[in-house]
Amino acid sequence: MLVQAGRQISGLPKSKKTVKPKMTVNSSVKMSSSSIHSSTKSQIKSTVEISKYIDVANNLADAASKITLKYFRTKFDVEIKSDCSPVTIADRETEIAMRELLAVDCPGHSVFGEEHGIQFGSGEGSQFTWVLDPIDGTKSFITGKPLFGTLIALLHNGRPILGVIDQPYTRERWIGADGYPSTLNGQSISTRACSSLSHAYLYATTPHMFEGANETAFNRLRDSVRIPMYGCDCYAYGLLASGMCDLVAEADLKPYDYMALVPIIKGAGGVITDWEGKDLVWNPKRPTPGLSAKETAAELKAGWPGEVLAAGNAELHAKALAKLAFKL
Amino acid sequence: MLVQAGRQISGLPKSKKTVKPKMTVNSSVKMSSSSIHSSTKSQIKSTVEISKYIDVANNLADAASKITLKYFRTKFDVEIKSDCSPVTIADRETEIAMRELLAVDCPGHSVFGEEHGIQFGSGEGSQFTWVLDPIDGTKSFITGKPLFGTLIALLHNGRPILGVIDQPYTRERWIGADGYPSTLNGQSISTRACSSLSHAYLYATTPHMFEGANETAFNRLRDSVRIPMYGCDCYAYGLLASGMCDLVAEADLKPYDYMALVPIIKGAGGVITDWEGKDLVWNPKRPTPGLSAKETAAELKAGWPGEVLAAGNAELHAKALAKLAFKL
Repeated sequence: MLVQAGRQISGLPKSKKTVKPKMTVNSSVKMSSSSIHSSTKSQIKSTVEISKYIDVANNLADAASKITLKYFRTKFDVEIKSDCSPVTIADRETEIAMRELLAVDCPGHSVFGEEHGIQFGSGEGSQFTWVLDPIDGTKSFITGKPLFGTLIALLHNGRPILGVIDQPYTRERWIGADGYPSTLNGQSISTRACSSLSHAYLYATTPHMFEGANETAFNRLRDSVRIPMYGCDCYAYGLLASGMCDLVAEADLKPYDYMALVPIIKGAGGVITDWEGKDLVWNPKRPTPGLSAKETAAELKAGWPGEVLAAGNAELHAKALAKLAFKL
Repeated sequence: MLVQAGRQISGLPKSKKTVKPKMTVNSSVKMSSSSIHSSTKSQIKSTVEISKYIDVANNLADAASKITLKYFRTKFDVEIKSDCSPVTIADRETEIAMRELLAVDCPGHSVFGEEHGIQFGSGEGSQFTWVLDPIDGTKSFITGKPLFGTLIALLHNGRPILGVIDQPYTRERWIGADGYPSTLNGQSISTRACSSLSHAYLYATTPHMFEGANETAFNRLRDSVRIPMYGCDCYAYGLLASGMCDLVAEADLKPYDYMALVPIIKGAGGVITDWEGKDLVWNPKRPTPGLSAKETAAELKAGWPGEVLAAGNAELHAKALAKLAFKL
């Protein structure tokens, strides 16, 4: 179903050309090989590769932001996907641009994106999977709300080792990578010390993402915190990594919604798992031959967690996990 | 109860000094007397006064943004008020600064603000009441989310004739005034034409603002729209005025939450009323002598609407109103 949303409106800024940046993302704010701390180098299995891939991820985010801002607050069609979520030409073009860069910079790596599915890699490179969400917060994007983001993750044998949250409109870029302190626009960040649920500020994108047992569990957590808040999409995880809120709990998610967040939260001192306390890992396997397209999709999805709990520290995470009491 | 929230975090921008503006608000983007269309001049009862008050309101917003951005993403205490809402030194200082300016520019006018209550005017000036919300979205403010705003309204005999939504972080300023086309950063804006609930994008700050009959009514509306979204505070009304979304429905509000929005929505072609379709007016009267402080507060509150419905056009507004079926 094609429906029209958004249109060119003269009063709202829509692109870099007409809007001065609130924060400038330039080479000085990108984490690169030169910013590796010698003390943390030894913690990284493959330091050279990680630093190279951080540069690749920055390039992907730069390319993505040019396209998303080109379309932001302009007239475009909104298509409703089979899962009832909206998608636009901006989502699709952005993902294609990132895939084209990866084909050059990381040939042989697998790529999984929200809009164009999975492309399996080959040889040594197939240990790596790039997981892309060109526009996290498409509903925000199509209503002109400036807190949409681009999410970029790199998995190694299923484990997220690098993640980027890029906020094109506010020019904020969070980066996390194995063995590196997480950064926002190049400056180290850390979560805060709140360890009491009754003092915690909790974010979730929307209460409507919780259904059935998920809703019951979330409501228990929601009712135990100081203030539950909504409407941030990936921005909430950035705020948590930067020590501005304490908990994010979400459900009905896909790997492209959360894999990028894992290294950022962990590298800022936080904890992020599924609602059973398990690590967020996903190692996509080639589909079983002979399956229908629907069965292939179901097989792919079977392996990934759908619920995410992020906390500023282990103590608060454990308390929130106990409150969720999910599948225990 | 004093609790600590927020702290200085190196990675997050916090003030104008360190952050380049996304949009520059300068004299060219402020609506002023020179921007009055001759064709609309005749519609204004008191054109000279309105244009003067637009300049006053711009000065208030400029002063407010300096203070809110000074505190944004820094370490400060959060006090929980008797209605369980949070308040900070930033809220209080900002309102005081605006009151001090009004005492000079508009002596004799009444002033009602969220943090420091009502101050009745005198003489001719008492026909006018300035209604101020120094930080709309305090919960966003204290968690570092950049979509908090300052709301400034001027009522004439209880009717809002001038309104400002100022977004300090994103440097966006919506202005509406009787007889003027509404503007965002100086450019005329208009609502969009969606007239079907099933195609409408609906915003509310949080589902937790609806209780009892309000919740039942809101849920009927929520279930009839394409996508319900949360977490924008006053920003949602700016998006509606700019033609980016279609409906905003909220409850448990006070005059400082909505009076500024009325001229902006109306001047962009939209409709905004309470949930019974009545105009949002409030003419504060001096309290009855001899009442206790609590009784005086109750008397003051008795006269104002608590629910707000804004729509991009009259047809959609009527459909949403029918869906709310509130107190009919």
